Amino acid sequence: MAVSNKVSPLAPKAGFPDLPPVAGVRLATAAAGVKYRGRDDVLLAELAEGSAIAGVFTRSSTRSAAVLDCQKKVGQPAIGKAAILVNSGNANAFTGKRGDETVERLTSSLARILEIPTQRVFTASTGVIGEPLAHERIVGKLADLVQGLSAGGFEPAARAIMTTDTFPKGACRQIELSGKTVTIAGIAKGSGMIAPNMATMLCYIFTDARIAQPVLQEMVERAAASSFNCITVDSDTSTSDTLVVGATGMADNAEIVDGTSEPGRLFQQALEETMLDLAHQVVRDGEGATKFIEVRVTGATSDSDAKLVAMSVANSPLVKTAMAGEDPNWGRIVMAVGKSGAKADRDRLAIWFGDIPVAANGWVSPDYSEDAGARYMKNQELVIAVDLGLGQSSARVWTCDLTHGYIEINADYRS
Amino acid sequence: MAVSNKVSPLAPKAGFPDLPPVAGVRLATAAAGVKYRGRDDVLLAELAEGSAIAGVFTRSSTRSAAVLDCQKKVGQPAIGKAAILVNSGNANAFTGKRGDETVERLTSSLARILEIPTQRVFTASTGVIGEPLAHERIVGKLADLVQGLSAGGFEPAARAIMTTDTFPKGACRQIELSGKTVTIAGIAKGSGMIAPNMATMLCYIFTDARIAQPVLQEMVERAAASSFNCITVDSDTSTSDTLVVGATGMADNAEIVDGTSEPGRLFQQALEETMLDLAHQVVRDGEGATKFIEVRVTGATSDSDAKLVAMSVANSPLVKTAMAGEDPNWGRIVMAVGKSGAKADRDRLAIWFGDIPVAANGWVSPDYSEDAGARYMKNQELVIAVDLGLGQSSARVWTCDLTHGYIEINADYRS
Repeated sequence: MAVSNKVSPLAPKAGFPDLPPVAGVRLATAAAGVKYRGRDDVLLAELAEGSAIAGVFTRSSTRSAAVLDCQKKVGQPAIGKAAILVNSGNANAFTGKRGDETVERLTSSLARILEIPTQRVFTASTGVIGEPLAHERIVGKLADLVQGLSAGGFEPAARAIMTTDTFPKGACRQIELSGKTVTIAGIAKGSGMIAPNMATMLCYIFTDARIAQPVLQEMVERAAASSFNCITVDSDTSTSDTLVVGATGMADNAEIVDGTSEPGRLFQQALEETMLDLAHQVVRDGEGATKFIEVRVTGATSDSDAKLVAMSVANSPLVKTAMAGEDPNWGRIVMAVGKSGAKADRDRLAIWFGDIPVAANGWVSPDYSEDAGARYMKNQELVIAVDLGLGQSSARVWTCDLTHGYIEINADYRS
Repeated sequence: MAVSNKVSPLAPKAGFPDLPPVAGVRLATAAAGVKYRGRDDVLLAELAEGSAIAGVFTRSSTRSAAVLDCQKKVGQPAIGKAAILVNSGNANAFTGKRGDETVERLTSSLARILEIPTQRVFTASTGVIGEPLAHERIVGKLADLVQGLSAGGFEPAARAIMTTDTFPKGACRQIELSGKTVTIAGIAKGSGMIAPNMATMLCYIFTDARIAQPVLQEMVERAAASSFNCITVDSDTSTSDTLVVGATGMADNAEIVDGTSEPGRLFQQALEETMLDLAHQVVRDGEGATKFIEVRVTGATSDSDAKLVAMSVANSPLVKTAMAGEDPNWGRIVMAVGKSGAKADRDRLAIWFGDIPVAANGWVSPDYSEDAGARYMKNQELVIAVDLGLGQSSARVWTCDLTHGYIEINADYRS
């Protein structure tokens, strides 16, 4: 794990943001030695009685035991407190029936100590796939964890769930709803095996908003579609991706029962901003990343075509290595548009690097200079804009470059 | 282009194969200085009167001017000789109307010198995208090229069309048809921007077989489906991929007019073998490749699902970097199966490294040892086998590992 000591050049300059405690949420971390030594690797979050829990999960057909368990529980009646238990170092994925037993042991042990139904315990595991999880090490720490629960402490919580991440990820928004201050605070971890088509990696968001569970679930799905489902590091989709949002209701706002109401829309927007913030941090900590790249596609004939083109550009190894080499190789963007499967017309295609027009009408723009392109590529934050010139639909996705660092990390992450 | 001087560790030990001349086919190469200096960069092939020309091309929606031109011409009446003109160093792709004019200039100039209809001239260009092709340099060499035409010379021909390739690629089969020896000889170039969903990169195959054009076209499409469309280096699809097969008829065999006849099936098999041989060479010369990887999928519920899973494994950056690091990280194979979108059941999945059972029934095999896996990974040729345990369909695809070499080549190929 030597590589994970390097900090990404794209890490937030100001460090971990200052997250306020969320009423009704208590956190604790512990070092159970699941795999890592000398660091906390288990996170426990306890949410107040009646908290609404919503979530979206990986769409992998080989999803982990914990994901399958959580999917059954989301949307069940909110009886008693809720708890979230996460470990890093071992994904407990593709571990057969033993994997299911591990989840059962963890959830029932914690439920017993907290005196809550097991259906209120949501677990997740992240790390290596296919090795048995030494759950007894975690079970042995549960009493201490419960003992240590306290308000706040998001930074150690974010650190406890890290694997190859080089910095902890947190984000927060506060809004006024019916005269009450509502806080949304979240943490996430990346940073490889990141691709869309799911709620990606691990992300936990806590809010003290009072909101009906079905409304929250709908909001979370909508927000995931435009945030976590719009990022890609390496096009690989994890077996364990989990995004869970818990709402304690302790802010005492008038309960949100309709997502289209004024408070509903305010909350939706704040939730989306929090999730997008975290999603961008995951990309910035993409394995080996030295560039943060936004791909904007406009002029598509449908939303799905726009997303197809954007993801084709964002996932292209040739585009990503060009960015790593600071090479304004826009021909590779043309290639990626062409292979996407979306409707495109060579002679209507236009491309920009940031505000620099690069190509239009099927060829290089008359006043584009390679020097200007090369200068632009020196930036750490890049925008690639593609207009297909065919329709009104658009998409935005985010990715990072593909560097020697990615190869270093992944050619010997496990061994 | 310093990187291209390194020879792939997967290059054929015996060097370029000994390809016999093909009756009715004459070749010439020249140094036109399109981009490279001190090497031949143009290939001319002339095929005897009445030669049947078949071809398959990239499915990119931003395909090059030469590809669009060839697609119009394949299947047209075989009046007079045919000619193939290929340059390396510039792809003449995404060069707008000027690109179309370039193709027109090249084909009409060559047609005039050879006194054949322009519809019998097939061109291709490979290299950088989006820069104008200095076609006058090639036009200036046409008379010399025609003058220099001679039988044989496949190795210099294969070298003239190379870009980032580290070795020239050739293959040959000979069969007896109606008492006559029929030769099939081909050349190809890779080695990046290689992905399926097309006839990939550049490949030219020559045969002296007498065969009806529509039958040949059908055979080429079938053979491409199981060879070039089953390889992937980096999942990126070129704008210029071209596979053209020319049959001169000079072997004087009884004309093949039915692909399902005995000679038809013999020829189909030899053609497929030649194409698969070349396709494997392209993978072996995949940019930065140090491992040649066959992915076998069985037990799928449909052919398309089998291919989907195989390509998902073969294109996964995490699988490919694990192979590069000689890490038997089979969890990443589970991940790639899970994200493929194909029907899969975690608890029926089985995985092998070569003959070593790695996982079965949703978990690691009882007698699998990490040591055995690690030893296997030291091989240069690897087989990853996946059984989905659901149906009868299967697929085989070929790829290479993802190494620092790929990043080196692509982070500054152009600059």
